[in-house]
Amino acid sequence: MTETHATNITWHPALITQEDRERANGYRALILWLTGLPSAGKSTLAHTVEMKLFQRGLNAYVLDGDNLRHRLNRNLGFTPEDRKENIRRVGEVARLFADAGVIVLAAFISPYREDRAQARALNREGRFVEVYVKCSVETCAERDPKGLYKRARRGEIQGFTGVDAPYEEPDKPEIVVETDRHSMQECAGAIIRYLEENGFIPAGA
Amino acid sequence: MTETHATNITWHPALITQEDRERANGYRALILWLTGLPSAGKSTLAHTVEMKLFQRGLNAYVLDGDNLRHRLNRNLGFTPEDRKENIRRVGEVARLFADAGVIVLAAFISPYREDRAQARALNREGRFVEVYVKCSVETCAERDPKGLYKRARRGEIQGFTGVDAPYEEPDKPEIVVETDRHSMQECAGAIIRYLEENGFIPAGA
Repeated sequence: MTETHATNITWHPALITQEDRERANGYRALILWLTGLPSAGKSTLAHTVEMKLFQRGLNAYVLDGDNLRHRLNRNLGFTPEDRKENIRRVGEVARLFADAGVIVLAAFISPYREDRAQARALNREGRFVEVYVKCSVETCAERDPKGLYKRARRGEIQGFTGVDAPYEEPDKPEIVVETDRHSMQECAGAIIRYLEENGFIPAGA
Repeated sequence: MTETHATNITWHPALITQEDRERANGYRALILWLTGLPSAGKSTLAHTVEMKLFQRGLNAYVLDGDNLRHRLNRNLGFTPEDRKENIRRVGEVARLFADAGVIVLAAFISPYREDRAQARALNREGRFVEVYVKCSVETCAERDPKGLYKRARRGEIQGFTGVDAPYEEPDKPEIVVETDRHSMQECAGAIIRYLEENGFIPAGA
């Protein structure tokens, strides 16, 4: 795929800004970017936090790696180049949602620091919160609800993060939750508390 | 770009459905898909409708062809294949927004009937409203705010819709607005009335 920058297009500025939407909504638009190994619990955690926010009347929405690979990114595989393009596209989509005033729960393995930094760089300061969903590879491989670690260790899947493809831990994530030491409810609660204490969302009832 | 369907991914169903969000919001999530020639007024109309909906407290958001080509789809050009992939991706993104409860104003030339039908097919019945932004090619070429018709007619741009690339008119659009016969405010008003009269949004104050 070439980088064909089209020349006959112009930028149409929005009449309604992200700030306008935040004022109308009463909370900050942002991306919670959940990164971690396969089976670390990213999707489950994202959906748990989404439900807690929805129940408070906030518009939260999960963008999930597997689901986007079924649809928007179905023409991408797991080579380093395709992973890069995968994260580039979902970073852009997450940015659009945040621009629309939504609290995005982005749950992607996103194993490369550089790609996560690029997703962050698309957003205004304070609108991108990196959440490291930490879990030892041993525990992830024990959970293995889809049997993927087993298949990868048998060599049936190539380039599987945590087996034969690298995962680069976040340097300075805003939040770290350890799903092998705390329950999903505790981890979700820690994220909600972070959002409250940093003025992203109003304090809960 | 190959169609590499990844095999090691599974679908995570949402805990919060589109219907849940519609109930909470008090209006229907949907995609207003604005199609038409370059310079027909799609983006301007989309932003005008967005503002009217936002002022009523509804979450509306414009997805604009040019803007997406600057970012998400910056690696695509204007060949028929790239146009197809462009509309495929934006159709998926529009669907995600509608799934999140948003009223999407999708402003894309989207010249091919088949591509628009595919974007429609991603959505539940009654969640995709095709708006034909109709304007004679003569008027579009006279407006030509970016000088693109002139450049295309001089042969400086290839594959320009309305000059040397086809535009397939919608067969059965839900709404037709004629920007060469009515003002932008009148066209926007017609769209709002359609939404009210068909129960998509509450009647305005």
